[in-house]
Amino acid sequence: MSETEPRTSAMEAPVVVASNRGPISYGRDERGRLVPRKGAGGLVTALSGVFFHDDATWVAAALSDEDVEIARGGRAVGAGPKQRVRFVDIPPDQFDLYYNEFANRVLWFVHHYMWDVPRTPVFGDQTRAAWEAYRGANRAFARELAKEAKRDPVYLIQDYHLTLVPRMLRELAPGARILHYSHTPFAGPQFLRILPTHIREEMIRGMAGADVLGFQSRAWVENFLLSARQVPDLHVDLRSGRVATEDHEAQVRAFPVAVNPHALREAAETPRAKEARREVDELRGDRKLILRVDRLEPSKNIMRGFLAYELFLKQHPDWRGKVTFLALLSPTREKLAEYQTYADECLSEAERINEEYGRKGWVPISVRIQEDFLYAVGAYGAYDALMVNAVFDGMNLVAMEGPLMNERHGALVLSTNAGAFRRIGRYALSTNPFDVQETADAILAGLEMPKDERQRRARGITRSVLAHTPETWLWNQLEGVDEVTRRAALTSRPPEAEERDLPRRAFDDEIGGDR
Amino acid sequence: MSETEPRTSAMEAPVVVASNRGPISYGRDERGRLVPRKGAGGLVTALSGVFFHDDATWVAAALSDEDVEIARGGRAVGAGPKQRVRFVDIPPDQFDLYYNEFANRVLWFVHHYMWDVPRTPVFGDQTRAAWEAYRGANRAFARELAKEAKRDPVYLIQDYHLTLVPRMLRELAPGARILHYSHTPFAGPQFLRILPTHIREEMIRGMAGADVLGFQSRAWVENFLLSARQVPDLHVDLRSGRVATEDHEAQVRAFPVAVNPHALREAAETPRAKEARREVDELRGDRKLILRVDRLEPSKNIMRGFLAYELFLKQHPDWRGKVTFLALLSPTREKLAEYQTYADECLSEAERINEEYGRKGWVPISVRIQEDFLYAVGAYGAYDALMVNAVFDGMNLVAMEGPLMNERHGALVLSTNAGAFRRIGRYALSTNPFDVQETADAILAGLEMPKDERQRRARGITRSVLAHTPETWLWNQLEGVDEVTRRAALTSRPPEAEERDLPRRAFDDEIGGDR
Repeated sequence: MSETEPRTSAMEAPVVVASNRGPISYGRDERGRLVPRKGAGGLVTALSGVFFHDDATWVAAALSDEDVEIARGGRAVGAGPKQRVRFVDIPPDQFDLYYNEFANRVLWFVHHYMWDVPRTPVFGDQTRAAWEAYRGANRAFARELAKEAKRDPVYLIQDYHLTLVPRMLRELAPGARILHYSHTPFAGPQFLRILPTHIREEMIRGMAGADVLGFQSRAWVENFLLSARQVPDLHVDLRSGRVATEDHEAQVRAFPVAVNPHALREAAETPRAKEARREVDELRGDRKLILRVDRLEPSKNIMRGFLAYELFLKQHPDWRGKVTFLALLSPTREKLAEYQTYADECLSEAERINEEYGRKGWVPISVRIQEDFLYAVGAYGAYDALMVNAVFDGMNLVAMEGPLMNERHGALVLSTNAGAFRRIGRYALSTNPFDVQETADAILAGLEMPKDERQRRARGITRSVLAHTPETWLWNQLEGVDEVTRRAALTSRPPEAEERDLPRRAFDDEIGGDR
Repeated sequence: MSETEPRTSAMEAPVVVASNRGPISYGRDERGRLVPRKGAGGLVTALSGVFFHDDATWVAAALSDEDVEIARGGRAVGAGPKQRVRFVDIPPDQFDLYYNEFANRVLWFVHHYMWDVPRTPVFGDQTRAAWEAYRGANRAFARELAKEAKRDPVYLIQDYHLTLVPRMLRELAPGARILHYSHTPFAGPQFLRILPTHIREEMIRGMAGADVLGFQSRAWVENFLLSARQVPDLHVDLRSGRVATEDHEAQVRAFPVAVNPHALREAAETPRAKEARREVDELRGDRKLILRVDRLEPSKNIMRGFLAYELFLKQHPDWRGKVTFLALLSPTREKLAEYQTYADECLSEAERINEEYGRKGWVPISVRIQEDFLYAVGAYGAYDALMVNAVFDGMNLVAMEGPLMNERHGALVLSTNAGAFRRIGRYALSTNPFDVQETADAILAGLEMPKDERQRRARGITRSVLAHTPETWLWNQLEGVDEVTRRAALTSRPPEAEERDLPRRAFDDEIGGDR
């Protein structure tokens, strides 16, 4: 309203999301018209709840021929009343190197400690080529994102696929407000040094081009800061969580992601979910049911889950025949040889256990390999114990979704290395995912826990999960961006004492309330 | 699981809500069977979202004959899969004194500064009788609540009707965890001294029997602390927000209430809301629409709203005929003479303005007096400016509901004296509710605001409102109770430095996130 009006706050600005996979991808119907199809995956699910209720543009890689066609048109397409999508056209060869070879085989592996270090990885020319493709794809994203700069949005750059984007985008659009969010863990500073030095440094410098760097948990924040300290010319303040170059400062902070309870409740009402529930109830009969729901992914620690269950059966023979273990596994990254091998190993292990312990009328482990979210939601209702024993995990949505939808006050066996452990660990049976004895003990404790205790632990989890929504997650991030912007606008910080004259401590201020 | 297990945390405990009005009240259908009917009102709406998704018992006054019948049976009745209701039987004469005469005519008035101080109030024998009835009703509540003590719940005592319950309940159930929440403002320490001294002191001592005292805004927290400082034998620490007697300490803190967006979206889809929307669109025609939605209640400042609108029309003749003001007012407390008088005055004022400024084809002000929530939700969609100019208001839900449901990026004119101002005031056009010139200016600014600016302010409000849900509100309160319990369990506080060795400030920690 006045000429000297300060810049619009992040809270009031439109948002531009960038991620490799978008909320929709286009195909054609039988009459040849463009039709959108919903995207899948944890990141898309987490962000869609926010995207479709906000004023937002989403920039994603073109995955179908139709997406490419739209990308080449150079325009954003409507995806809702206030939502638009832009596609980035990345040639197939480059995409394969960027996405499969570099992002998924190098970065995903390093952050989840997935190497057999004495043997793998071996970096060479191919790595360099993959890195070049990764760089090129990130540059293509940055260019597409810069087209939105005139609206002065807040950029929300997602995940390990796009670590170079913050710095590249800042060069193209100097005043831009940029947040980068990592859905994965972030490797510790020693393990990260497995990466070629120039790659490690360029990646961290790329991320540090953001105003705010968000992670799922304080553990990953700390790992990032300690790693950034090893990069020449970056100044790191561990106490305040800031990483600075001579002309820019990034704030590093934890914003744990949330589940959308309303979407889950809707899913549970679908015929498919109800059918699944009936099937799973039938499978259980009058036994106790242990459930796991995971992508068929080495970091999920499926094999040690089976081994722990075997140990439990071995040590507690009275439980044989009285419990069944259902593993719902969805296929993922089947093009990567490592995944194929791991999947085969898991299945043979389950078969071996079934042969050794099974008897007429009782199969100890049932494995279903299928991409079927609704089936999982139906199964959530029925378990007595849910196993989430990931080796490392950014957050883990299953650990939050399961207890929310479970109808038997089932116990949660939860890896201490999942980001979700910080939010709900105190109500779970914790386990070191590498220690199959501890996991076997947790299974026993879960199955034998008195109803009272299961009930109160379930209450704690449910309340914590319900208190954190995708909208809270977005709001916290925008507040973070505004706080950085406000600080940057001040030459020195104003005295804080005045505002705090009356009652005031972390405790006095409402948490997550108005401020 | 072990004998030395510490007490269950508040987060894991069942909750017991107490409020004058409950979430349901019973009647009979044509076959004489008991049927529940949903309760109404801001408090019930705010709490129902939580209640019906949690493991909870609700204790409320018996309002119908059927409720009384249930109350005399002495048992809780099921109200959902994990929800129960208990009714408190208060004889009609006592109820009238407790509820109408004391709670609504004395306490509501004092907290909203609703007296003509040179003339009213005049306290005497009748006040003492009303106070005795209030005490008796509070004792009846405390006794009913104590029946739940064996489950070791967290008691959530609601509002100014039940200020004596915390202390009474603590005497009946010494170890109980008790939170008292005030949905209203809390009067400043000078104004509160209008109450008879023994009443003021007993009321504050009664509240201080809680472990946690919750308010909508820090302003009311501060007022309470300053008032408590005037009560003999209460020790008040303004900085930490604590009120102590020799054997008990209460923590005073702000937990602003939230709206339930999903319930609102559902309401907007009802035929009644859609019909309302069509009607309101028709009323508007091609004019701009100013809307207000309020109980017909003196604290809502309906009269000054009309006067400000008149001033706006007077000072900006070009706007005459181009704007219409729709006031949706729901009848309330019609038994109180003060309310009847105020309602009459408001309506005559509107008529006078219509006569003075109206002309063929244009009525400046339309008033609809009706109890019709769905109609209001429909109308929310259509406004260009929403007027919320309450004299004083604990929070004000309309200021949050309206912008969430509005489809025209309408502007919000918001009283600086509403609790909601702290959450969303920076995106609103603020007004001192007593200054009709300021309110008239805000109306003009709202109607003439460029679309861009309306859009970004609407974004800020929407995101802030969506980030705070009833579930977040409950979780924060339970966290508050747990924090008090943990502190009480320690003889001295542990060193905090260790935990904070790595990055850590208010900023570094996710807000409302895991901790």
